[in-house]
Amino acid sequence: MQLLDRDSLQAYLMANIAPAHALGLTIVEVEPLTIAAPLAANLNDKGTAFAGSLYSAAALAGWALLTRWCSAESIDAEVALHESSARFLAPARAPFRATARPPGPADLEKLKRMLARAGRGRIELSVEVSCEALLVMTLSGAYAVSSSGVSR
Amino acid sequence: MQLLDRDSLQAYLMANIAPAHALGLTIVEVEPLTIAAPLAANLNDKGTAFAGSLYSAAALAGWALLTRWCSAESIDAEVALHESSARFLAPARAPFRATARPPGPADLEKLKRMLARAGRGRIELSVEVSCEALLVMTLSGAYAVSSSGVSR
Repeated sequence: MQLLDRDSLQAYLMANIAPAHALGLTIVEVEPLTIAAPLAANLNDKGTAFAGSLYSAAALAGWALLTRWCSAESIDAEVALHESSARFLAPARAPFRATARPPGPADLEKLKRMLARAGRGRIELSVEVSCEALLVMTLSGAYAVSSSGVSR
Repeated sequence: MQLLDRDSLQAYLMANIAPAHALGLTIVEVEPLTIAAPLAANLNDKGTAFAGSLYSAAALAGWALLTRWCSAESIDAEVALHESSARFLAPARAPFRATARPPGPADLEKLKRMLARAGRGRIELSVEVSCEALLVMTLSGAYAVSSSGVSR
């Protein structure tokens, strides 16, 4: 399945990832990979965005970036978050956006070699969540990428 | 507001935290503080629970434990997740539960002193997410607790 452009990735998300639908997470751009979220579906008791929702948008932005890379490289693989470190810097009082920073070419080459050799690999990504002009959260996530048929 | 028993905490959650409602997160026990989640509302494209949903249940379990403690201590305060480190150990292929480990008495005494002195404090909590007999995720979270009227 080709998951390269915004529309195909967004359709895949809506069809296959139930919470993305429930929280109103939408891919708005693929370069850089950016996911937008409304405030209303993600409100907590303080009238700001729930930490779990900020995290969900960030985790999904990293996942979508790597899923798109696999598609571009014709690698049939599963992408899953393995470890993460998150910092919540300020409350989000309006709709917010998670943007995954593109990994460097050397990191992607290394992932490609690991996939070719072992059928699985790991890569670290940084994702930033902003609300209006404010940086509200940062995520550093280690994702596992496994070729189909290889269990982790 | 008294938020001590399961029913009052659960009612508060449903009324005030929109994603908890959308993801079907339910407080099932207060000692230890345990949040249950169905699989269907949290499914990803691999037929397992979405990482952001596991994280949401875990983050909320820690928040509910501290909110309940504040209520028991008659402290009018806001509880917010500040930093976290999460590990995803295995896929959740069925409904799952997040259980917050009760902090030690010394940590709670320290938090109480910080709140009395500065109107704000910080405490680390560990939360485990299990699916059937399997540990699927661990969260270590630093929560900020601020007396009402004190901005952080």
